Amino acid sequence: MSKRALSVTREENFPDWYQAIVRDGDMAETSPVRGCMIIKPWGWGVWERIQAELDQRIKDTGHENCYFPLFIPMSFIAKEAEHVEGFAKEMAVVTHHRLKNEGGRLVVDPGAKLEEPLIVRPTSETIIGDAFQRWIKSYRDLPLLVNQWANVVRWEMRTRLFLRTAEFLWQEGHTAHADRDDAMGETLKMLEVYREFAENVLAMPVIAGEKPANERFPGAVNTYSIEAMMQDGKALQAGTSHYLGTHFAEAQNIQFQSAQGQLEYCHTTSWGVSTRLIGGVIMTHGDDDGLRLPPRIAPRQIVIVPMLRDKPEDADLLEYCAAIEKELKAAGIRAFVDAKPVKSAEKRWSWVRRGAPVIVEIGGRDVGGGNVTFMRRDRLRDGDKIVSVTKTRAEFVAEAGRLLTEIQISLFDAAKKRLDENILTGINTWNELADYFGAAAADDEGGAFRGWVKVAWSRPEGAELEAVADRLKDLKLTIRNAPLVQEPLDRNCIFTGKQAKEFVLIARAY
Amino acid sequence: MSKRALSVTREENFPDWYQAIVRDGDMAETSPVRGCMIIKPWGWGVWERIQAELDQRIKDTGHENCYFPLFIPMSFIAKEAEHVEGFAKEMAVVTHHRLKNEGGRLVVDPGAKLEEPLIVRPTSETIIGDAFQRWIKSYRDLPLLVNQWANVVRWEMRTRLFLRTAEFLWQEGHTAHADRDDAMGETLKMLEVYREFAENVLAMPVIAGEKPANERFPGAVNTYSIEAMMQDGKALQAGTSHYLGTHFAEAQNIQFQSAQGQLEYCHTTSWGVSTRLIGGVIMTHGDDDGLRLPPRIAPRQIVIVPMLRDKPEDADLLEYCAAIEKELKAAGIRAFVDAKPVKSAEKRWSWVRRGAPVIVEIGGRDVGGGNVTFMRRDRLRDGDKIVSVTKTRAEFVAEAGRLLTEIQISLFDAAKKRLDENILTGINTWNELADYFGAAAADDEGGAFRGWVKVAWSRPEGAELEAVADRLKDLKLTIRNAPLVQEPLDRNCIFTGKQAKEFVLIARAY
Repeated sequence: MSKRALSVTREENFPDWYQAIVRDGDMAETSPVRGCMIIKPWGWGVWERIQAELDQRIKDTGHENCYFPLFIPMSFIAKEAEHVEGFAKEMAVVTHHRLKNEGGRLVVDPGAKLEEPLIVRPTSETIIGDAFQRWIKSYRDLPLLVNQWANVVRWEMRTRLFLRTAEFLWQEGHTAHADRDDAMGETLKMLEVYREFAENVLAMPVIAGEKPANERFPGAVNTYSIEAMMQDGKALQAGTSHYLGTHFAEAQNIQFQSAQGQLEYCHTTSWGVSTRLIGGVIMTHGDDDGLRLPPRIAPRQIVIVPMLRDKPEDADLLEYCAAIEKELKAAGIRAFVDAKPVKSAEKRWSWVRRGAPVIVEIGGRDVGGGNVTFMRRDRLRDGDKIVSVTKTRAEFVAEAGRLLTEIQISLFDAAKKRLDENILTGINTWNELADYFGAAAADDEGGAFRGWVKVAWSRPEGAELEAVADRLKDLKLTIRNAPLVQEPLDRNCIFTGKQAKEFVLIARAY
Repeated sequence: MSKRALSVTREENFPDWYQAIVRDGDMAETSPVRGCMIIKPWGWGVWERIQAELDQRIKDTGHENCYFPLFIPMSFIAKEAEHVEGFAKEMAVVTHHRLKNEGGRLVVDPGAKLEEPLIVRPTSETIIGDAFQRWIKSYRDLPLLVNQWANVVRWEMRTRLFLRTAEFLWQEGHTAHADRDDAMGETLKMLEVYREFAENVLAMPVIAGEKPANERFPGAVNTYSIEAMMQDGKALQAGTSHYLGTHFAEAQNIQFQSAQGQLEYCHTTSWGVSTRLIGGVIMTHGDDDGLRLPPRIAPRQIVIVPMLRDKPEDADLLEYCAAIEKELKAAGIRAFVDAKPVKSAEKRWSWVRRGAPVIVEIGGRDVGGGNVTFMRRDRLRDGDKIVSVTKTRAEFVAEAGRLLTEIQISLFDAAKKRLDENILTGINTWNELADYFGAAAADDEGGAFRGWVKVAWSRPEGAELEAVADRLKDLKLTIRNAPLVQEPLDRNCIFTGKQAKEFVLIARAY
């Protein structure tokens, strides 16, 4: 029998499987507000772990957290021309500040129209730049390194929980520097922070590189990203870091007096990751039984399910479970006894679907023998059979920390293997590329697994780049990035036939 | 000479002093967006400590964090009649979802009008209630205990940083229960969590009690608050906890099947504290030299200022400071070496104004003698003279934890003494009350220090209560709460002359 804990498998329908895992793993749900999600406690717990781990890294690299307003005056958005171009599309606009009761009906009060409409921040470069312009006087104030954790809104037409929602949560770092070198150093440093965080905390291998010009953040000089491969072969942009040159500084008059006494424009950067990462974790580690959470971000790392039978012996069972929980907690492990009055099989499967790394089931025999019986979520089955292991309580507790580390590594290794084995490097012509992806192009939702291809290109610009992007778009493809780590170039550009300048990754993407 | 580190004293002008401390203590500043503030790193660090301490308490009492949408459909607000009455006034209303470029100018796209306007949440009872209605099926799902940390917006006309801003940050707890007793237990439990937190973490003594009917949260059956006394004698409502009865459950159809199989409405509660607490901390502990932060919420508890002289000896100085910092950190203390290339006197005063609990200044003599010279921010001066103490390095490090505890307690004790000594209980008639506050009534900003009065009242209702509230309003007074802890009643109501039912606190308030 091949019954799995989700109603649909990855093979059958990847997008439906994703929805099932979000729902049945108690991660999030849609809300009555178009495009906005409700993040449920289990999903929120994952975000809390992500925040804690990343926040520490942001602070360790010298940044300070602060908080800027939710609203941005419309005129601010208009200041940086490319920024307007890129963002002046779908945003939530506040136009009034009062409701009133009209004949028993609640209506917007026309008398309370704002003089200038306010935009709910889609990102905060402009409002933070305005503060930088006031805060920065001299080279002594530089670098200025701030970060904020905030909600932002982009009025997306097609939304998908965690991956693309109208409101999402993120951190956005914003920094100002005296010169290009310092700002570029920051941009790449934070990209590396994201890479290390994605790989070591989320167990999600990524490739760090520079986005092509047509995929840059509006107003950026260079945009870098980390890209992760999902189990359907698509790419997920999991974090970005931008060198903004002096574009925003010029638009907002962010100047400093140099050591030589001259007024100069600052070089600024920005970088961010969002709740989208949770979507990446799901599509990297989930299986047909539900989510599998890397222990470092699991709100509960070891869940203990007492097999209660509504009998007097239940008290012993609970006491035994509580003792194990206490020992695990003392070892710094997020342990939890699920004592809810629900059938233990039901509880087991709910934790399987949520992806708790280790699920312990304790019955009377375990108590009698002083044992612990547990399942590793990363190796739940042998074929179709559920694998459970019994150890003595002392042994289990002593090894629990190591077990969690092992699970963290095994999840990373499996994902890394998938990434490494599915970047095709043998494609040397446009036709080969079109043939390779063409078969799957018909199906909007991805079709057959294709992974990524790495091709050589001449880094075309302007109209030539637009033409390349259009050709790729017909195949539903985009250039993800030019990896920072490059192999020796031995080919010509598959788009222009000219001498190649670098390898780039091409893929379908979220 | 009585020069102080702020440009204005509490005595001279309390509101100006407050503004000076917010500005010169690097806590926050106004933004270009009307009524919205920028919380600067030092202010944000205080909020992070508040969040961490309170979040732990919220979790320890069985609540789970989650996240609900920023926007609320207008129709949701209309559901609960009293709630509409109380909130349907000043709110940010999103009416459009797109900007467009019109002849080079950015304008709101009239073609992108929302079918139903969205309200930026002023509080989330209605949107969370909608989820509760879906999540709750049976008595087994109760109690349902959730909390969220979020930004909310109320379009206030007169704003003051931290105390009253259009956008502010808070936590809002929302719970559903099977019956009144359970819900009331929750309401009072969270009030007690707030009291304990305010007193033990913020070192801010409060009085917990029930608000009179005219001060209830819109839609609540009972509203409880903790009230703190500021140094100008005014009251600050520092946290509220509401028993909502079945009002919201009836409006939103939040029902459950009881153990007996009947459909019943849930009893719900909500409770919250906000960034307003930071204003309370400032007005409780600040002095004429700036802020004084209780160590438990100070982002940096011990700041070490090396007295750098741009000489080769600076290296030794920095090494010595770093060694002390390391030892303190190992003891779990948030220590920090301020090595900025700025005059050490300037640095000292900036930390005095920010209220770092302990400020260490290290010069060449300290290094030579193996000593540490430090100031306690809670006892900065003896008369006008700055008090500094020198100890051996080993002694200082060994005693640092105890020193911080002592400072925490001394700040609490001073505030507690002020509160206890300034609640007047001898007032037995309306005329005495009017005389006592009358002299100060002319001055909008508070005038002479009056503190609070505790009077007996008959707990009038309806029109009779309205009349009392109006009379008090003429004196710019409000009833703060009826303390949970009551003394024996021996008087008649000062408003109605009837037999009194309880004592209530009356004060000017923020």
